[in-house]
Amino acid sequence: MNEPTVTTQPSAGGLEGVVVAESEISYVDGQEGRLVYRGFSIEDLAERSTFEETTKLLLDGELPSAAELATFRTALAAERSLDERTLETIRGFPADAEPMAALRTAVSALGLVDPDRGDDGPDATRRKAIRLIARLPGIVAACDRARRGEDPVPPREDLGHAASFLHQLRGQAPDPEDARILDICLILHAEHGMNASTFSARVTAATLSDIHSAVTSAIGTLKGPLHGGANQEVMKMLLEIDARGIEPAAHVRELLAAGRKVMGFGHRVYRTMDPRAPILRRFSKSLGERTGDLRWYRMSEEIVDAMRAEKGIDPNVDFFSASTYHALGIPADLFTPLFAIARVSGWAAHVEAQYARNRLIRPRAKYVGKRDLRYVPIGQRD
Amino acid sequence: MNEPTVTTQPSAGGLEGVVVAESEISYVDGQEGRLVYRGFSIEDLAERSTFEETTKLLLDGELPSAAELATFRTALAAERSLDERTLETIRGFPADAEPMAALRTAVSALGLVDPDRGDDGPDATRRKAIRLIARLPGIVAACDRARRGEDPVPPREDLGHAASFLHQLRGQAPDPEDARILDICLILHAEHGMNASTFSARVTAATLSDIHSAVTSAIGTLKGPLHGGANQEVMKMLLEIDARGIEPAAHVRELLAAGRKVMGFGHRVYRTMDPRAPILRRFSKSLGERTGDLRWYRMSEEIVDAMRAEKGIDPNVDFFSASTYHALGIPADLFTPLFAIARVSGWAAHVEAQYARNRLIRPRAKYVGKRDLRYVPIGQRD
Repeated sequence: MNEPTVTTQPSAGGLEGVVVAESEISYVDGQEGRLVYRGFSIEDLAERSTFEETTKLLLDGELPSAAELATFRTALAAERSLDERTLETIRGFPADAEPMAALRTAVSALGLVDPDRGDDGPDATRRKAIRLIARLPGIVAACDRARRGEDPVPPREDLGHAASFLHQLRGQAPDPEDARILDICLILHAEHGMNASTFSARVTAATLSDIHSAVTSAIGTLKGPLHGGANQEVMKMLLEIDARGIEPAAHVRELLAAGRKVMGFGHRVYRTMDPRAPILRRFSKSLGERTGDLRWYRMSEEIVDAMRAEKGIDPNVDFFSASTYHALGIPADLFTPLFAIARVSGWAAHVEAQYARNRLIRPRAKYVGKRDLRYVPIGQRD
Repeated sequence: MNEPTVTTQPSAGGLEGVVVAESEISYVDGQEGRLVYRGFSIEDLAERSTFEETTKLLLDGELPSAAELATFRTALAAERSLDERTLETIRGFPADAEPMAALRTAVSALGLVDPDRGDDGPDATRRKAIRLIARLPGIVAACDRARRGEDPVPPREDLGHAASFLHQLRGQAPDPEDARILDICLILHAEHGMNASTFSARVTAATLSDIHSAVTSAIGTLKGPLHGGANQEVMKMLLEIDARGIEPAAHVRELLAAGRKVMGFGHRVYRTMDPRAPILRRFSKSLGERTGDLRWYRMSEEIVDAMRAEKGIDPNVDFFSASTYHALGIPADLFTPLFAIARVSGWAAHVEAQYARNRLIRPRAKYVGKRDLRYVPIGQRD
């Protein structure tokens, strides 16, 4: 057989280093360890922006005016409530439902009742994007409360995005310091180039499927332990070290000797420190100091030292997220849903960008299987 | 800023011609117009195999023995029933739910109750794959009946896969000729290399997310009009031509003059006739003859002639699917769900292959946006 036209094969597999699209949304500078959203460094945004403003920046490409931001914040806050049908769907989930599988299902279900369903033009897509960004925190909180047999807490329009989520999760308004730390965590996780979940959202959108399909794909992709699931795996490791009462460095050496992966280290793109890690490291420490429990922070630092000594690799965004979220009282299996609450802003920006200059994403497989077989009737088979 | 290591950029975008993986599952020979599953030509399988046997072939890589096939058919038939929780979810869908959005949501919900949830090892994944393949027809039928206010019809274990679906859809057992035609349609649609939905399943699976996430992504991707949605669009066109009472060739010329796409023609990979099209063309004709209504078949032939004259391109798998499914009495908005009922076999085979030799699929974006901006406090913005 002739091989079809194939221009190239990425040597390392996994499309490593293959450029799939041009993007104006974010720049991940793996050599220098820099992350830039729409021209602004992640450090600048983490220090001075909010999740709502960063979301608006990601969607529009520039910082909003005061009036634009106020309108956007109001729109987001007004769209937080879940309809009764979606709440009923959530109440129907089994109590042991994996939170990411529950989120994937609830977001898919939102697509059935969205007022703009069936309209995939740019204006309708933006409205659907805002609804998705606004509703994800309430879905995650409602699923968590439902499995504990508790009623959902209505969103608070007077609170910011992060604070309203904590209120819906805990049933009481958070301390402003907690809310601001979570707000910054959302900024840090909002966007990261052509990562696997964002790429899956774009593959789905590129058939001109709708944004609910694209975000549902992204959630399912983020769910995997090699992507969003990593922060939860980090917490599992911290809890295991604590339960064993072992030195963190000894645990790391055991894992490495057994050929196992230490979660929260290394990155496909960064060849140096992930710029989000030091920011989260500070939160891990300051929350530990504030709560008087520095155990998780200290354990994390010892693991970082051990990994640097053993493997020479640095922590990524997932590593200090774990001890930070734990200090905020967030259950470990909500760490990945929390990642989705943030990343949906980036997914939405990428879906809009995909639609704006669409081309079907359809690579090739190189066939290495059998050839020229003939069907043998079942009675004549060996 | 330094550009990160980028090995190549596919010139045409959309990863056209880029090899993302080796595969032993199917060979799409675009130059010669051949499609091969595990070494067997699609013509051979369409003539002599069944959907169940083809599914087993796709999953295992070889034709089963008589005993293996009997065991597999029994296992598939035994797994068709939907649990009460999933049926309740389906009953909760709004009556105007888009069938592909409903299928996406129901399949995602199946992941919450699968007995093997939380186990993504090869044996558990195979069991989940069989359950997904077995249950998709019942979901599609139950959603269709629910929106018409009718109760779901239980599956018939004594019928083949295609026949049981028609029974669940219609409430009565189909004519064996109808069932065999649908069975062959399922064979034709079961697998097609690294198409967009299969690729999205693999992108999701490559984070080591579960098969329900991967198949949910694939359904959302298939939903788009540039992929699975095309067969429904073909039927819309046929119905519009019929309603207008216009010559099909004149309608085609109008569409082309307006710069619009004629659905069901051309293909990213095939440079000659899609080998599935002539098989479906025969069904379109024979069903028309049998029902005494050759209108849709004749209209389709005139469109084929017009497209060959105007653009020199041939019909693809979607084009004659439309008139075939219509003649089988299947509503147009179930054409794409029917595609999913078939393609889930290929998706499952690819998810298993991805897990077997996994590497995270994470390409790059080339950043072409703004650089080196500094955050301006909101009161100081223009």
